[in-house]
Order: sequence, then structure tokens, then C-alpha cells
Amino acid sequence: MSIIEPKILKGFRDLLPQQEMIRKRILSTLESVMAQYGFVPIDTPVLEYTEVLLGKGGGETDKQVYRFQDGGDRDVSMRFDLTVPFARFMAGHRNELYLPFKRFHFAKVWRGENAQRGRYREFMQCDFDMVGVDSLGADFEILLLMNRCFTALGIDGVQFHISHRGIFNRFLESQGIREHSVEILRRVDKLKKIGPEETRKLLTELMAEEKAELVLSYIQPVGGGEATVENSLATLAHMEELAGGEAEDSSRMRRILSMAREMGIEGRFVLDPSITRGLDYYTGIVYETFLTGMPSIGSVCSGGRYNDLAGLYTKEQLPGVGSSIGIDRLIAGLEELGLLGDAPRGADLLILCQDEGLLSHYNQLAEEARSRGIATEVYPAPKKLNVQFQHAERKLIPFGIIVGESEKAAGTVNLKNLQTREGLEGISAQAAFDHILATLRT
Amino acid sequence: MSIIEPKILKGFRDLLPQQEMIRKRILSTLESVMAQYGFVPIDTPVLEYTEVLLGKGGGETDKQVYRFQDGGDRDVSMRFDLTVPFARFMAGHRNELYLPFKRFHFAKVWRGENAQRGRYREFMQCDFDMVGVDSLGADFEILLLMNRCFTALGIDGVQFHISHRGIFNRFLESQGIREHSVEILRRVDKLKKIGPEETRKLLTELMAEEKAELVLSYIQPVGGGEATVENSLATLAHMEELAGGEAEDSSRMRRILSMAREMGIEGRFVLDPSITRGLDYYTGIVYETFLTGMPSIGSVCSGGRYNDLAGLYTKEQLPGVGSSIGIDRLIAGLEELGLLGDAPRGADLLILCQDEGLLSHYNQLAEEARSRGIATEVYPAPKKLNVQFQHAERKLIPFGIIVGESEKAAGTVNLKNLQTREGLEGISAQAAFDHILATLRT
Repeated sequence: MSIIEPKILKGFRDLLPQQEMIRKRILSTLESVMAQYGFVPIDTPVLEYTEVLLGKGGGETDKQVYRFQDGGDRDVSMRFDLTVPFARFMAGHRNELYLPFKRFHFAKVWRGENAQRGRYREFMQCDFDMVGVDSLGADFEILLLMNRCFTALGIDGVQFHISHRGIFNRFLESQGIREHSVEILRRVDKLKKIGPEETRKLLTELMAEEKAELVLSYIQPVGGGEATVENSLATLAHMEELAGGEAEDSSRMRRILSMAREMGIEGRFVLDPSITRGLDYYTGIVYETFLTGMPSIGSVCSGGRYNDLAGLYTKEQLPGVGSSIGIDRLIAGLEELGLLGDAPRGADLLILCQDEGLLSHYNQLAEEARSRGIATEVYPAPKKLNVQFQHAERKLIPFGIIVGESEKAAGTVNLKNLQTREGLEGISAQAAFDHILATLRT
Repeated sequence: MSIIEPKILKGFRDLLPQQEMIRKRILSTLESVMAQYGFVPIDTPVLEYTEVLLGKGGGETDKQVYRFQDGGDRDVSMRFDLTVPFARFMAGHRNELYLPFKRFHFAKVWRGENAQRGRYREFMQCDFDMVGVDSLGADFEILLLMNRCFTALGIDGVQFHISHRGIFNRFLESQGIREHSVEILRRVDKLKKIGPEETRKLLTELMAEEKAELVLSYIQPVGGGEATVENSLATLAHMEELAGGEAEDSSRMRRILSMAREMGIEGRFVLDPSITRGLDYYTGIVYETFLTGMPSIGSVCSGGRYNDLAGLYTKEQLPGVGSSIGIDRLIAGLEELGLLGDAPRGADLLILCQDEGLLSHYNQLAEEARSRGIATEVYPAPKKLNVQFQHAERKLIPFGIIVGESEKAAGTVNLKNLQTREGLEGISAQAAFDHILATLRT
């Protein structure tokens, strides 16, 4: 029989154990944070009716979707984000759910876009939202939670850029340029990449130079984006002035800034009016997150407030606020910054197999070690010891225990630290486990 | 705009928070067990080339596969199990991996089969395998690990039925009926369902009555399947006798039985020669697992030894042994048996919002509680207190903290146990957290 090449699709990838352990470590940290804040997980199918995912239009932007006829001739699609399934979920289970509903959903999505460097056709999103309430407390909680996620991941160099679509819309309205809103948002979004001069040029394609100047003035934070509450408050005052004065939107934003100060986390927040989040979907506060050591990779956690999550599926208006961590991009950024932490070990201890007749003894020792919290594997066949040591090295296992017939008879083990090459011979198993635990804890 | 019905595809389902929390609790327990035994995770794409997943044939059995042309006219399919992608993974990454390679992969797979009760078109498999070694140690480790998985899940009522395809094949060979192997396996597999009389009838369709009698004698465990080592050893002797005497296969099985006894876990093992695992793929020991309170739902963890994992993709022969937990079936069984454990709480503590002006104070209290390991949510808006209490009830949150301006000034909180309705008023936040932790731990 001829061999089939074990190739995978372009834009897709395997994760080797080291990569998958890192991803799982990050996901597990984030899930613990979610639980600490009372966010609960849900699951939805990967495949849905195309009409449900794409609406009745199914236009230009939907070309990236993996769409096909299933065996029963249903028009189905693989989910391309977690927001649309969540909206469908909320509408479909409304009677089984309570409001406010705080859910998280960490799962893969698929988009057949051109696979560039670091962009995949299969990737994971980590979404969290609070639905059913439009309040200061909700807006602030998502920010607090975003901050906690990055703290829990050990990432200090992070800044949250926030702004408010409501204030921005008031500003556009007051200048009589609200009808260009979508086009203006698209151009304003480029400020960080192309700078103020180029942005001005783009804006003057849409409006008089004087108005463009005002837009440019609106979107630039006071103090050049340095993260202090004073700067943010000054920026807010400027935004308010251009938007026609104080209103609920801007006073809520002022409260958010002072809450950040009261919580002692203001140093990570910048009121940055160039943040708009392209989508029309957002109506209130919007968030983006940058690694200060690597702003060029773009936002690693973005979101905001919307006033109608599930309008496609229900007449009930469901306002909400949420955010999404782009975990693949985040991991790529952390890797380049050297912030991924220690390479995960395949186990803590390898019990070498010197004599197949002693396998029960080896497994008993292993069970004792595991009961003490030491991840332990027993080498499954009596190969040459140097082969077994190499195996431990490949799996980054730091300790080995060697036991032959005489050690078993004496009730002892020989322990080897595979990194320092130091050995402790003829000690009790418990002494060996104590030594391993003490070493791993330092 | 008209509303789209938020329907989902037949055979697919959402998991509500209570269900998803239970599934995550089980998966998390299993992942910890895997790590304790030095099994490492991998990930593979959901979509692969159809040729890679189905081989060049693409025959009758592949009708269940979700297969389509992607946007680039590639013939692609969604994975229908985790074994084929693992084989492709091993062949494709052979140079980056070491042997023996112990991996686990817990993930969804898709099959468009007729959706019966408890059968889904999207379901999760929990696979674990050790590849690259054919040894007693490896065969036993998978059994030990299966046993540990169920122990860790708190499931005592479980029995592992094991048998050996090599001994069975020797038996068929010695009786000159090896060529009917596949048909015999299919009929023998029904013994538990239809009983010996019906099985005898089915077998006599294939062979002389005398031979059918022998097959029936072979597949029935001594002692009626009671889990004692003595029964299993007697069964093994009977199998050996019918298969033409002792050989490597049967002596390895004898060692496995005595290792189970030496490890003190023999009470969960039954040598059960009716276990054959339909697939031709298996060549050595085979495993099935039954909940003793609910054998009718079938095996919840099955697997065995194979001698050629990746022959479709590489000329290197990769023997292995592994098993797979059918987690959806397991959860369904545990639910019916009332063994799912406590209903997961949405959080431990709700800090009620009596006054929006105190939100920073509420969030500070919440952060303190979280730092002590208390999952805490702050109600995000100043609604009526009874609405907030109802919310806590819906999320199974057992404690509430109520703080107004005067409590804040006094540095105290009012704590309420929402189950007993007892209250502790005017205590310090730390005293409240102590009380919560003490109560939750009992």
C-alpha cells in the first residue's frame, strides 16, 4: 500500500506538547480568574445553520466562512466567532437563564482568510460578557476582570486603552458628520499605524479641512497617551467639550476613571479616543489592550458595550458588555518577549525500569510519589539506562529513581537529579520524594 | 426586520452553565490525572484533507463524515475520531518527538449518524495512548491509569473487563476458523446483550455446532464474571488450553493479573474473553469499562493494544496501547446514578449593590474575598435587594454581603447565609470571609 503524505491544511496547525501545555496553562489560569468573578462557562456547537450564523443576508463579508451542505442537505457553517452563537444561545435559552448573565466561552473558531504570519484559519477566542444590564458597575467589572487576567498571567507590561462610542457619536453629531460615521471610524482606527499627518489626509477626503482638524484633535489623548488619571481626565474634558458638554456617557466614563484610581489600578489605563473598534455593534465604552513591550502586534484583548446582543433572534433587547482575548496572538507576543515562563515539564520524576520483574514495585513507588503531588512516570520497558535517561531529558523530567533487586530488598532507592547529575544513593523512597518536592519548590 | 429562529442542528446541543461546569470539572480532573502519569497534551486541527482522514478508499463507512469542498476547492473533512489525526500527527512530527510518546487529547469529534437518545453528532472523546513500545509495562500502565481516572472522579462502582485479541486469534487459528474472524468478533460482541443461547445460534450460522460450542466456551468467563483474581486466572487457563497452550500473549496477561493483585486493585478487573472490540485494528490486550450500577449504557472507557498506529502515513511501525473515555456517555450514566456530585455554584459570594456610589468599595471587598479564594461577584447595578437575592439563588451562590454607607463608615459588613437565612451583622470583612470559608469547607 502506498503511503499518504501526513500533510495538514494551510492556515491550520498541530500543537506539539510543549505548545499545548503552554496554551493549557494560560487557559487554565484564565478560567480560574473567570470563576473567581462569577463568570460561568457555556458550550455551543461548532456547526450551525448558515441562516442562523450569517443572518438572511449572507453577503460579501461572509466569504471567509466554512459553509457547506451536510448529509441531510442542510446549509450549515462552522462558527466564525463566539459572539453570534452567544446571541443565538441567549435568545434560545432565555427562559432557562437569569439576568445579568455572565458567561465565558473559550473555544476555536474558523475563518478561511488569507493565512499570513501569525494568522490562522483555525484559532481560539476567549470571550467573556455580562449581558442584561447597562450600568457603570458592569462596564467597570469587565475592565477589572481584564486587568486581573493579565495580572494572573504574570504580565505587568500591559495597558488598557479605553474610549466611548457614545461620546464619539455625540461629537460627530454636533459637527454634522454623523452620516460618515462608519468611514470616519475606519480612518481614525489607523492613527496608531500611520500617524496624525496621514490620518488628516484620509479625513479630508470625507470632510472640510477644519472638521478634519477637529476630528484629529478629538482622537488624540492629552499627554501623548501616558497612563495617568490626570491625563485621562484632561482628555475626557477635551472630548466632552468637543461633543457638546457633559452627559450620562461622559460622566459614567469619569466615574470609571475615578474607580480605577480608587482600586489602585489607574496606572494601566489610558483614555484614548482613537480607540473606536470598527464594528457598528458597539455603542458605549470600548476597550483595547496592548503589551507595552510589543504594541506592534496590536490589541490582545478587545471589546466594549453593545445595546442589542441578540436582535437577530429575539425582540427582547439585551444590552451587554464584554471582551475577548486573542490567545494565539497573545502567546506569540509573550513568546517574542520571553514572558512565557518556564518550559513545561513532561513529568517531575521518571522511575527507570531496570528489571521488568520489578514493575509492580516501580508502579507502587510511582503511586506513592503521585499521592504526594509528584508527576511520575515509570519507564515501560527494561531498556538500557542511558536510553531511559535520554527519554527523561527529552521530556524535561528533572529527577530519576533507579531501583534494582538489592535496593528493593533493602527498602531503598537511588535518586538522581538529572540536571545537576547529583545522586543520593540508598535513601528511603519518602526521603527521595521529600528531596524532589523541596527542590521543585525552590 | 424579521426574527430568525434561534434553532440548532439536530444531533447538536448547547451546554448550559450547570452542564458545562460539570463537564469541565470532569475534564479538569482527568487532565490532572494525565499529568500525574506523565501524559502530555497535543492539539490537532478540526479540519483535515479528506484523503488524509479517510485514506484513498473513502468507502461505505465514511458516509457519516462531514465532508466538503473548502473555499480553495480542497476536499476537506471534520475529524470523526482522535485516533486518525493522532496517527497523522505521529507520522508528520516523528523527528520532533521521542518514543515512547504518551499523549492525551480531549476534544470534540463529529459524525453525522442518526441521532438517537444520548447519541450526538458532535461529541467529545478523551483519548490517551502510549506509542512506540510493546511491553507489559505499557499495557499495565493504561489499565492503572484507567483505574486512577475513575477513582479520581469518585466512581467506585466500576469494572474493567479485559481480554486479549492475540490469544483469541490463536484460538481461532487452532480451530481452523480464523478466516471468519471479523464475523465471529461481531457475533461474540453481542454475548452480554443477547445471552449465550442467541449467541450460539448466531455462531452456528458460521461454523459447525461443535466449533460454535467451543467458541461459546471460550468467551464465557469462569465464575460468571465475578471480579476475583482466582476467577480470572482460571479463565486464562481455560483460554490458553483452547488456544493451544501458553505463549507470550497469555503469560503477559498472567503477569498483568498478578500486577493488579500486587497493586491491590484486582477487585476491579475481570478477564472477560467476550470482550473483543470490533475493530481489526487491535492486536493485543483489549479493555472495556462498565459502571456496575448501570452496565446497560455500555462501555464508558475502551481501548487496547495495536501494532501499527500510523501505517497509512509512514513505513515506520508504531505499536501502541491506549484507551478512550466516552465522556458524554459517562456523564449521562453518572447523572442517572446520582453520582455527578454537588451542583456547581456560580460563585461563593454575592456582594449586593445597595448604593452605586459605593461600587469601588464593593469591588475592593470583592478583590479581598477573591484573594482569599472566595469566588465573588458584585451585583452590577443598584436594583431592589430582593431581585439581587433572587439572582444569587438562581446561581446557587450561598452567601451575600450587604454594605451601605453606615457599614462602610464603620468598617463592617452584614453577612447573610442565603441557604439558612442566618445573618451576621456588623462584623469585619475578614470575619465574614473566615465564616464563609469555614462553612464552605464543611
